[in-house]
Amino acid sequence: MSAAGDGPGRPGRSGRTGRRPGDRDTRDAILQAARRCFGDHGFTGATIRMIAGEAGVDPALVLHYFGAKADLFAAAVELPVAPSEIVATLADVDPAQLGEALLRMVVGLWEDPEGRTAWLGLVRSATSDERAARMLRELLTDGLFRAFAEALGVVDAECRLALVASQIVGLGVARHVVGLEPLATMAADDLVAAVAPTLQRYLTGDLGTPG
Amino acid sequence: MSAAGDGPGRPGRSGRTGRRPGDRDTRDAILQAARRCFGDHGFTGATIRMIAGEAGVDPALVLHYFGAKADLFAAAVELPVAPSEIVATLADVDPAQLGEALLRMVVGLWEDPEGRTAWLGLVRSATSDERAARMLRELLTDGLFRAFAEALGVVDAECRLALVASQIVGLGVARHVVGLEPLATMAADDLVAAVAPTLQRYLTGDLGTPG
Repeated sequence: MSAAGDGPGRPGRSGRTGRRPGDRDTRDAILQAARRCFGDHGFTGATIRMIAGEAGVDPALVLHYFGAKADLFAAAVELPVAPSEIVATLADVDPAQLGEALLRMVVGLWEDPEGRTAWLGLVRSATSDERAARMLRELLTDGLFRAFAEALGVVDAECRLALVASQIVGLGVARHVVGLEPLATMAADDLVAAVAPTLQRYLTGDLGTPG
Repeated sequence: MSAAGDGPGRPGRSGRTGRRPGDRDTRDAILQAARRCFGDHGFTGATIRMIAGEAGVDPALVLHYFGAKADLFAAAVELPVAPSEIVATLADVDPAQLGEALLRMVVGLWEDPEGRTAWLGLVRSATSDERAARMLRELLTDGLFRAFAEALGVVDAECRLALVASQIVGLGVARHVVGLEPLATMAADDLVAAVAPTLQRYLTGDLGTPG
């Protein structure tokens, strides 16, 4: 469900504030300011304070509506799930099952048409435009990996999460962009059985020593 | 090294025919015809006969200059290595070392500026244009996987090779497009140590059963 793409007659995410008149306008103003600031300054360079200034609201209101910066970014590009929800969900998973849980979540996101569209948009723009590539890079390292790293509790988390991201991005490109068979039509369970061990090894296994 | 991009003063690949006058013109005419035919009909739809007709030469001459259709395609998009060479090289490798050998070859291709440019061009166009996505899909399945499958000698080769392709594409995007650290600057040996076991399992290991 996307707040930014809602038409006037369609209920959107109402945040934690209920439905006072003007909520929608404020949210929209923040999202538009966020798109401008992320576009001009990248994920790391754009600050909550800068976005609030651009939208003409108090920074506390931005955090009240959207929580973390990565969640605001996700809302701005219409990802149907907030990064902080992903991290929170995975925090409760047995570390030995983390690869499978993460992959099931991602494959489920791709099954959802809105999730797939948003995901494909990120990948397409990142492969064709250096600014978008920088945005995706910063979102992953500053917005997602840091939170995951704490949950993982390993020293080389950045490398492990980058390897995980490489397999997930490649799988999404093969399954939903290039349409490479049999990956394109494979049942989610078969895909998870084949690929989850890869993610699990990247997350918690032996990454090898150069031979 | 790319034949198609050679300037007039620079020696190009001379093929197996030596340097008769007119060789260069004939090769260039075939490459131009190949680009048009692949663009209009995709990798599978474009035939050697069709490309020869478009170039105004005998089909035997096309095969004489370029060998297999996948090699002609590689020359047309200026990949610095012919797919048949990759397959021939890997045919001599111990099956238990195939993941590492393949990854070393790919990482080496990316280190070469011309190889990286050609590879990035393929990925960028495939993620932004449905015709280019189809081309890459057909090149992989018809042009590469079939030859690899024979060398591998397993029944589910198509699935295994698609999984391999997904990790390689994702690694290339993370390392050279998104510039995700530490993958972007990691030494080739460390990258191979971390990722080769993934490719090896996809190629010859247990792909799991849905849980």
